Amino acid sequence: VADGTPRAKRVDALRNSGSLLDAAKTVFVASGVDAPAKQIADLAGVGVGTLYRHYPLRSDLVIAVLEHEVDDCIAAGPELSAAHDPLTALTEWLTRYTEFVGTKRGLAAALHSGDPAFDGLPLYLLGRLDPVLSALLEAAASAGSIRNGVSADDLLRAVAHLCVPGRGEGPEFSQRMVALLIDGLRFGTA
Amino acid sequence: VADGTPRAKRVDALRNSGSLLDAAKTVFVASGVDAPAKQIADLAGVGVGTLYRHYPLRSDLVIAVLEHEVDDCIAAGPELSAAHDPLTALTEWLTRYTEFVGTKRGLAAALHSGDPAFDGLPLYLLGRLDPVLSALLEAAASAGSIRNGVSADDLLRAVAHLCVPGRGEGPEFSQRMVALLIDGLRFGTA
Repeated sequence: VADGTPRAKRVDALRNSGSLLDAAKTVFVASGVDAPAKQIADLAGVGVGTLYRHYPLRSDLVIAVLEHEVDDCIAAGPELSAAHDPLTALTEWLTRYTEFVGTKRGLAAALHSGDPAFDGLPLYLLGRLDPVLSALLEAAASAGSIRNGVSADDLLRAVAHLCVPGRGEGPEFSQRMVALLIDGLRFGTA
Repeated sequence: VADGTPRAKRVDALRNSGSLLDAAKTVFVASGVDAPAKQIADLAGVGVGTLYRHYPLRSDLVIAVLEHEVDDCIAAGPELSAAHDPLTALTEWLTRYTEFVGTKRGLAAALHSGDPAFDGLPLYLLGRLDPVLSALLEAAASAGSIRNGVSADDLLRAVAHLCVPGRGEGPEFSQRMVALLIDGLRFGTA
């Protein structure tokens, strides 16, 4: 497909709009990362060929969905900080991040599938989120709402651990434990 | 081997003393649950035949080691309560339990190996530990040292999640996060 043709423009718009990624995300959460390509293409309202043209390998699509989600998490940091006091912004952000990790069960399984395409990706994503959470932690500590000295890296990892599917934990388990960690951050202040 | 013979008595004593299980635990932690039987027998100072006589299957031995460890955790509850104030007893117990779960990496892998001998075992072990931690939590809440309303089951599961080997977490990661959970329990009191 040559650049500049109407078709290429339409396809680029589609890609940029994220509608393919949104469709893929929805299908992955519902049916796992090995769901048929047609299911994703149908939901996005495109042909299977378009899907394969942009994401030749399934791992390409999984990685793009994860990146897209992480972009959203990163954007949420400054947005929440602008709209709320530092403690609320931190709490909301951690709640969203927990939700993000928790709904990525199929994606998480893919990350541990042994496919070398995914090697290093979890640490890369953690690294992208680290500055956002660090800024939220610093602002809340400066406001006296939480203690200093707990690293963003520890918290990002702790949430990821608490969101791994276990045996018989209810859907609210991760959020309850993350809330308890936040209370731990608050302990000893004020 | 007929009961009452000197040999049977010696073997029983060996079994009861836990030395076989201690040896198995040491070898499992160092080399994984698939370590050669001879390594375990040598460390316990017995023949391989004795090991197989008591634990015909490797899963028998893994389960016995886990039960033995959980017995120790259960015994530690009242001991710590008798020796310390309720908050210290709770903190010490959770620290020991975290250590117990953290050093059972090879055992944990066995539990997820798909061997049907291990089906249901994690929940059974959680169930045995639940009353011990519940008592510690109640005592600490009665003393006003922690809040009410966080279940032993949640905490036992949270520690187990935080002890699953991750990518690049240092050895102290689990204990730091468990300490933060304990601070969360303390938040809002006194």
